[in-house]
Amino acid sequence: MRILIDMDDVIANAVERFLEWYERDFGVRYTKEDLRGTKLHMIVPEEHRKIVKEYPHCEDFFKDLPVIEKSIEVVEELNNRFEVYIASAAMEFPYSLPHKTKWLDKHFPFIHWKRRIFCGDKSVLKGDILIDDHDFNLSVFDGRAIMFSSPHNLNDTKYERLDSWLDAEKLFDLK
Amino acid sequence: MRILIDMDDVIANAVERFLEWYERDFGVRYTKEDLRGTKLHMIVPEEHRKIVKEYPHCEDFFKDLPVIEKSIEVVEELNNRFEVYIASAAMEFPYSLPHKTKWLDKHFPFIHWKRRIFCGDKSVLKGDILIDDHDFNLSVFDGRAIMFSSPHNLNDTKYERLDSWLDAEKLFDLK
Repeated sequence: MRILIDMDDVIANAVERFLEWYERDFGVRYTKEDLRGTKLHMIVPEEHRKIVKEYPHCEDFFKDLPVIEKSIEVVEELNNRFEVYIASAAMEFPYSLPHKTKWLDKHFPFIHWKRRIFCGDKSVLKGDILIDDHDFNLSVFDGRAIMFSSPHNLNDTKYERLDSWLDAEKLFDLK
Repeated sequence: MRILIDMDDVIANAVERFLEWYERDFGVRYTKEDLRGTKLHMIVPEEHRKIVKEYPHCEDFFKDLPVIEKSIEVVEELNNRFEVYIASAAMEFPYSLPHKTKWLDKHFPFIHWKRRIFCGDKSVLKGDILIDDHDFNLSVFDGRAIMFSSPHNLNDTKYERLDSWLDAEKLFDLK
């Protein structure tokens, strides 16, 4: 069985980087709770919107992102039992590619380069399960689509859901 | 209809870079004819083999590769008519990623980032047609597999073949 796992806000904490950079630039610390059902650029003052949307296009945005809690242990266990691929829609952010590679080498060295994918849209990927935080990725996937909970998607009711890697038993029941 | 097109030795001339670097390092210019059914590291003196195999792991190997003859015009035409993706098994060579991105931006700007894929193995890709020079990519693809001729694969008889982009009419007959 092949499981495809997204990176940003599934195993790498990009939300945290948005909050951190916004505080660095404007002195205000929003919280994950503020982001429920939305994204940071939607709740900041209008004159900051464009800057926030540009963050992931900056050279260092994806450098050394924090690891999502317990993702390493669970993904390693899944990788021992199934065919696990890490699949990131990274092409929109060319600067992210070397950072993402180094990050995987450091935190997920057990994911062989053969099992790493940087793509644009995920409709081109073939697998049994996709774990992702975005509706636009899950909706074009024709296997079992599992939404990994992230502040922006908490109001979405269309998918089976994984709230955190602490709920790993849901996945270990996979046949 | 979705067509997946490989990069190295299909649209980007990596063979030429191997020959060029070997001449730079050892003063001998092999030709494409010397590479019929084999690869450069197999025909050089044994003491040079390891060095040649390391070339694609070097930082600049994939920088500014020559474009394969007529590939831009034909791929652009295909892209106007079909759903074209560029899919490169680039993950083995992390240094290649920024070079490949810049190279596509320069020579194939009409391939949107949504239609670019850097992967490890290609068994994970879903499409109707794959144009690739390697048996190990074509053999795991479950659509129509077209071998793009390159010196190393000239003795392979397993696949439908595209000898060069000059034979584009074969593709434009695609229904």
